[in-house]
Amino acid sequence: MISVDGPIVRKIRLDLSPPTDTDHLGDLDRVWRGLDAHGITGVQTSLSVVAGLSEILRAAKFRVVATIAFVPTLTLLSLEPTNKASRNFALAVDLGSTNIVGSLIDLDTGVTVGEHSMLNPQVEHGDDILTRTHFCRRAGGLKRLQSQAVRAISLIAAKLASREGIPASNIFSISVAGNTTMAHFLLGLDPYHLCRTPYVPVANCFPIVCASELSLDVHPNAPVIVLPNVGSYVGGDALAGVLVSGMHKQEKVSLLVDIGTNAEIIIGNQDFLFVGAGSAGPGLEGDSVRHGMRATKGAIENITINPQTYNLSYQVIGGGRPLGICGSGLIDLMSELFSNGIIDSRGEILFPAKTPRVQKNAGVAEFVVVMAEDTKTGTEISFSQPDIDNFMLAKAAMYTMLSVMTESTEMKFDELDNFFLAGTFGGYIPADKAVMIGMIPDIELSKFRLLGNSSLEGAKQILLSVAALEEIKQIMLAVNYIEMNESQDFMVDFMAARFLPHTDINRFPTVRNFLERR
Amino acid sequence: MISVDGPIVRKIRLDLSPPTDTDHLGDLDRVWRGLDAHGITGVQTSLSVVAGLSEILRAAKFRVVATIAFVPTLTLLSLEPTNKASRNFALAVDLGSTNIVGSLIDLDTGVTVGEHSMLNPQVEHGDDILTRTHFCRRAGGLKRLQSQAVRAISLIAAKLASREGIPASNIFSISVAGNTTMAHFLLGLDPYHLCRTPYVPVANCFPIVCASELSLDVHPNAPVIVLPNVGSYVGGDALAGVLVSGMHKQEKVSLLVDIGTNAEIIIGNQDFLFVGAGSAGPGLEGDSVRHGMRATKGAIENITINPQTYNLSYQVIGGGRPLGICGSGLIDLMSELFSNGIIDSRGEILFPAKTPRVQKNAGVAEFVVVMAEDTKTGTEISFSQPDIDNFMLAKAAMYTMLSVMTESTEMKFDELDNFFLAGTFGGYIPADKAVMIGMIPDIELSKFRLLGNSSLEGAKQILLSVAALEEIKQIMLAVNYIEMNESQDFMVDFMAARFLPHTDINRFPTVRNFLERR
Repeated sequence: MISVDGPIVRKIRLDLSPPTDTDHLGDLDRVWRGLDAHGITGVQTSLSVVAGLSEILRAAKFRVVATIAFVPTLTLLSLEPTNKASRNFALAVDLGSTNIVGSLIDLDTGVTVGEHSMLNPQVEHGDDILTRTHFCRRAGGLKRLQSQAVRAISLIAAKLASREGIPASNIFSISVAGNTTMAHFLLGLDPYHLCRTPYVPVANCFPIVCASELSLDVHPNAPVIVLPNVGSYVGGDALAGVLVSGMHKQEKVSLLVDIGTNAEIIIGNQDFLFVGAGSAGPGLEGDSVRHGMRATKGAIENITINPQTYNLSYQVIGGGRPLGICGSGLIDLMSELFSNGIIDSRGEILFPAKTPRVQKNAGVAEFVVVMAEDTKTGTEISFSQPDIDNFMLAKAAMYTMLSVMTESTEMKFDELDNFFLAGTFGGYIPADKAVMIGMIPDIELSKFRLLGNSSLEGAKQILLSVAALEEIKQIMLAVNYIEMNESQDFMVDFMAARFLPHTDINRFPTVRNFLERR
Repeated sequence: MISVDGPIVRKIRLDLSPPTDTDHLGDLDRVWRGLDAHGITGVQTSLSVVAGLSEILRAAKFRVVATIAFVPTLTLLSLEPTNKASRNFALAVDLGSTNIVGSLIDLDTGVTVGEHSMLNPQVEHGDDILTRTHFCRRAGGLKRLQSQAVRAISLIAAKLASREGIPASNIFSISVAGNTTMAHFLLGLDPYHLCRTPYVPVANCFPIVCASELSLDVHPNAPVIVLPNVGSYVGGDALAGVLVSGMHKQEKVSLLVDIGTNAEIIIGNQDFLFVGAGSAGPGLEGDSVRHGMRATKGAIENITINPQTYNLSYQVIGGGRPLGICGSGLIDLMSELFSNGIIDSRGEILFPAKTPRVQKNAGVAEFVVVMAEDTKTGTEISFSQPDIDNFMLAKAAMYTMLSVMTESTEMKFDELDNFFLAGTFGGYIPADKAVMIGMIPDIELSKFRLLGNSSLEGAKQILLSVAALEEIKQIMLAVNYIEMNESQDFMVDFMAARFLPHTDINRFPTVRNFLERR
């Protein structure tokens, strides 16, 4: 008997008895009878499968492997001779606006056998989502964005399949987690109303479609699940985070922040889930910092300043000479500049400074992170006063959102059971440094849990468990959206957070103690 | 609340509340919420419907009509503005090997608004099914037969829609009843194993497909139901007959004979259903009679011979001069020739005869039915000794099959509650005359019930009732096939039946009494 929970696509071996004079049941009905013996009934299928059935059954002497999808309804996707049966692979996709990451999973073992990421080719039509949304007003614009997303996923599938030595047609299921707009692009749904009041998506819960409907180059009958979202601002990527954290099943209240281009904050437990979203990413991910960059090869991802010599030590992703600084590097840098007294609590670069790395360039104060001779481009990597100001706004926004969301549940930060950090950025966030600059609250460090790319992880979990798919739909239904900008306290809180760590130092006892000891 | 039974496709009017700042549910989810209020939950849909949804909802101010298919799973087929909503039409098809008949049904009222029939264009590749089955071995053969069936159905749909003043895209469902091979052709399934031991179809119960999957020119999302069959010989057309007769729900045992190119005989009640099939049609439908023809315009459909003058009176289908004689006309003719002593109980034309209409033509005895000057072609319509001999074989086969089937249940003919006659032929069969020649048993005339084209009628019933579709599947599962040729008594019975009415005259008391009185 087949277990109730399990992968959304499963291979069932059928040793059928061939027809005889006293048993001339139809070929398809014979397959149904075989599946029935495994407790699988009410299966549907398409003509494409039925058309080749008789020949396959006879060539295989009625020993076949049926590939069955368990969602959206029980469906026979393919039938193969047992001795030539393919394995059961699935593709989990994190469909980011900048990067698309795919994981190839062997559904029989649950093992991830490969991962591949590529730049989202849609950046050609705008780095930010709003520009791409406007591009959809042009004739053929949406179609173009859709086919770019489809081709990128197909390319990732092809790459991973070829590495594993299988044809891409052995991929029998796909799940995709992305923000609401990216999901719309992929499914060819007009995002027009997503960015207009009252911000309504075409769908929160998308129909499960066939790979062939989207022209995805995997098995044509493969079900493609695009994770649900809650309105414009809370995408399937954020809901995936909740799924992965498990916070929706716990008695104690946790908070999850998913930091991407937007930041989504979810607070709750088994009884309630509040979600709020806001733009915090650009400043934190380096977009509004001159030498900021994504966490890819060449990015400085962590920095320490020697308190005696003021010399810097840092690590570069992938090794070699640095190209710029990614989010976690920027947090480290801000924290180190502050704790070493190079910037003050307003984020102002101090003159005279304790290190010659502080200089003025065309009248603008800046801190030289890497000298020109040590960089990949041959020009120095610096962190200027405007960069710092932008970063201050971003970190203040982040703290304020966390604060507003937590207060909306009439809780205090230190009452939280867990503080989950998600997103590719969240995978590397140095919590102690982020506390130092007042970006995240000053709570026990052990309560911070890094979820890494929970969007991709959630997509994987759904492929591996029919129950998980049901669970994320329940999460979607449970979530209540909180409009944070409507909070009257937001601006007051925000202004107060534009200090290092905060105008109210008592909120950050660890930092206060450090500063007093210094 | 929606009623549980009803048409397989229904239109549901939804007056949805538009999104507001406090209700930014997705557009599709809003439609689901509206359907939920009608008790319709768990609906699925395709991207083609979702893609246009937002625009339609807003143009229609959220007053829309949803077209919902109830099989194979709840599916949203289309969404239209209430003020421009189409009506809900369906097409029932009797897919005969010679003629294809379609009925257009208004599913909201249940009324058949039009009927149209055309020659099955597949006859180009053989009049009989076996020749067409062989044609499928050629490259592209099956594809060709499939597209001919599809185009014929599309043509019928177009014709009926245009008569009704609607576009064919207002047809949201189709059901098709045909024999097993015709169903395979339509679905593009290889009939190879249908005519080879152990005579296994690709499927007994076919998957419900989308019109677009078959390239049928109706609404692309329309579900297409092809009625199930029981093996090679008992098609959906015959099962439709059972459904229409209601014999499967009665306590008393009935017999149903469906006369087409093959004859299918079903005997049973609510507890059992036995079915047998055999070739009887050709002789009865006129194929092996020189001037025989189908029951179409120009066919003589009933004949009386004046016992005094031996003059003939007859009716011609559609009026005008006759072209030939159809099945019911042949039964009349045989019966009249016999009861007037023009042929003897062996079917031999008597010389000297009581009428100059009996003549020899190139040494072959014949009876002139219509003089050359009174026919449409200008050549006489006659009924020769070989014609009579062929007809005698066919009527003997028919009686023997009825007899074997009835005996297989250990019943006698006069214990039958009803004797249903189905098929286009069965719609016009003169029961008293058929008894006279011993083609059907001599039971109370009131027990004969003419079902007409029950294949078409069954297809209609399935469109009008989800329960009827379930019912025909139950009929399919209940039916047991009886191989009549395996019966040792068959040849003995058959030889005995090659007399008028039968070698055992006591089986036909009505005829015996008539002959004794004569």
